[in-house]
Amino acid sequence: MKPIITLLTDFGTVDGYVGEMKGVLLAGAPDATLVDITHDIPPQDVERARLTLARVWRRFPPATIHVVVVDPGVGSSRAAIAVESDGRWLVGPDNGVLSAALLLPTARAVVLPVPSKASATFHGRDVFAPAAAALARGEPLDALGESAASPVVRRTPEPVRQTDGSLDGEVIYVDRFGNAVTNLFGFRAGVVRTGLRRIPVRHTYADVATGEAVAVVGSTGFVELAVRDGNAAEALQIVRGSRVTLEPAVS
Amino acid sequence: MKPIITLLTDFGTVDGYVGEMKGVLLAGAPDATLVDITHDIPPQDVERARLTLARVWRRFPPATIHVVVVDPGVGSSRAAIAVESDGRWLVGPDNGVLSAALLLPTARAVVLPVPSKASATFHGRDVFAPAAAALARGEPLDALGESAASPVVRRTPEPVRQTDGSLDGEVIYVDRFGNAVTNLFGFRAGVVRTGLRRIPVRHTYADVATGEAVAVVGSTGFVELAVRDGNAAEALQIVRGSRVTLEPAVS
Amino acid sequence: MKPIITLLTDFGTVDGYVGEMKGVLLAGAPDATLVDITHDIPPQDVERARLTLARVWRRFPPATIHVVVVDPGVGSSRAAIAVESDGRWLVGPDNGVLSAALLLPTARAVVLPVPSKASATFHGRDVFAPAAAALARGEPLDALGESAASPVVRRTPEPVRQTDGSLDGEVIYVDRFGNAVTNLFGFRAGVVRTGLRRIPVRHTYADVATGEAVAVVGSTGFVELAVRDGNAAEALQIVRGSRVTLEPAVS
Repeated sequence: MKPIITLLTDFGTVDGYVGEMKGVLLAGAPDATLVDITHDIPPQDVERARLTLARVWRRFPPATIHVVVVDPGVGSSRAAIAVESDGRWLVGPDNGVLSAALLLPTARAVVLPVPSKASATFHGRDVFAPAAAALARGEPLDALGESAASPVVRRTPEPVRQTDGSLDGEVIYVDRFGNAVTNLFGFRAGVVRTGLRRIPVRHTYADVATGEAVAVVGSTGFVELAVRDGNAAEALQIVRGSRVTLEPAVS
Repeated sequence: MKPIITLLTDFGTVDGYVGEMKGVLLAGAPDATLVDITHDIPPQDVERARLTLARVWRRFPPATIHVVVVDPGVGSSRAAIAVESDGRWLVGPDNGVLSAALLLPTARAVVLPVPSKASATFHGRDVFAPAAAALARGEPLDALGESAASPVVRRTPEPVRQTDGSLDGEVIYVDRFGNAVTNLFGFRAGVVRTGLRRIPVRHTYADVATGEAVAVVGSTGFVELAVRDGNAAEALQIVRGSRVTLEPAVS
Repeated sequence: MKPIITLLTDFGTVDGYVGEMKGVLLAGAPDATLVDITHDIPPQDVERARLTLARVWRRFPPATIHVVVVDPGVGSSRAAIAVESDGRWLVGPDNGVLSAALLLPTARAVVLPVPSKASATFHGRDVFAPAAAALARGEPLDALGESAASPVVRRTPEPVRQTDGSLDGEVIYVDRFGNAVTNLFGFRAGVVRTGLRRIPVRHTYADVATGEAVAVVGSTGFVELAVRDGNAAEALQIVRGSRVTLEPAVS
């Protein structure tokens, strides 16, 4: 089977940087299938890239190679790593962006050496793409570098249970549609408070009228705030980090 | 031959939604070639997606599978459908977005069942991508669901002929360059009136001077208004729905 | 090996134009691997497309076919050409956008005939994509058209040495991150002057504090101005064409 290599970066699509990486990947692994996840992570937003990777990486079949380059520390002493986890490989900077894969107990990571002639500003092309191409050609993880002692791991903050039974949480992600994903997991009933608003948890957007706010369990299992046929972030003046409180339904 | 699957959505490229769909597609059909048509349909703009699909779907070779997800009614009672038409397959919500294929007399459609565990907000991942992967693996259309009685069909409005021989039409699409596509088909000569402006139909942009307005027969056969090296929508204050009148050349 | 075809255009991603080209490419060469370089070249910005192509074209393996369509003269008398250079093929308008490949002494170019039924506004679909598909199917360059006498070539302006040893150059490119690439090649030490600012050349961004300006040798070897964790073009009020002066380090 031909190898699958995905790309997830903050390089945008107006420059040729992604194209250079794709050239290096195909020069090293000409039969690879390249898949764009996104290149529109806001510049240097490691946290958003981490959450995006968490959403996608295990949807792909085993043996997929994910190249993740959101890398404010490029050229500094931060390590470059490659990871094997749940049958997939991942390559990227050691800044927490690969946490979703590293959190599995069977994950293994190695440190990628930086060639002396690598550009100090573009490890995506000169370090990460060559490592991904090597994995695509069948090179084992251990051939790429020495074991990484303790890669950086970032976690989604946990909501805090209050004495009245409610949970204090926060908005961790606002998407293109203005839907606000919270860190409240799996509550299919109850009420979400944000500011002075009280928003009921329902099954889907269509359970409220056009223009009304609603909370639903989103596609990754977290409660999210939406406005039917509208933009919740704008309507509710919510941004990443905004506080929300969930009052679970009394059962 | 390896199957070709295209994606046409309003999901944008800043989130991981398209990536999740691609993962499901490749997990179900690992040798498929994935092709991005666009993910930048304005949110919930079914009409624009319909016109974009009309432009592209038969350019692809037979057996191509088009996945089209612009779906304001996700989670409501609108059906999910798969269509076979002119040797291609299409998968998407039953809201008219697939009209270009459904309008052919030999088109057939089936209703896709929604699994009980499907996310109520993301049928692209949980309904449409699995159906497309099944088609890519060679499953016949009829194995995917029951025949669809009367799928929703949307049509481009027809221009109206006036007593003086002119045609009253409208702008149906404004593209990235500010070119305004009308519903006036195939007129290679004459004059287009919009507001107080009279714009001649010519062969191509280069037939007028820089900054001048011109009407040409565009690449799908409809007359479109352009400004050479400029943006016609801005210069002529045209939006989708703006009225235009064509005075055919006297022959 | 399956052929690789890349696309570099100013068509944007909100319309179906790129999708139409991909359909024509796959209809003509169904086993081709399609690779998006970018479709977000600013409309009609031939110079930016030229520099982007220069950055990517030889990163891809031999036999890659690059389709480059930034074509303000579409439908005019400008020629359409196909080029063979350093083992790759390139297809695009004869407006200088393919200069990177044409500048190699062994480059060969042919003029592509424009079919009478080709749209006057969309040679990407009706001229360039069919030519690329023909090359992907193994047709030789000379089968596509007559030899092109003297294709248009554009060059990056050279910096000018001053009597005091400094070099007067300019900004040739501003990227998504606000980094300003100059035409000063390969200086790993010294000072860059822009306006009243004096900016030291260092190894990488991390050699200065957050928010500070720095000059580094970028990933194509040209000196570029950056602000660590910031946007140099905004902070330094630099645009394409801004003058810069390099004072080389005294050795």
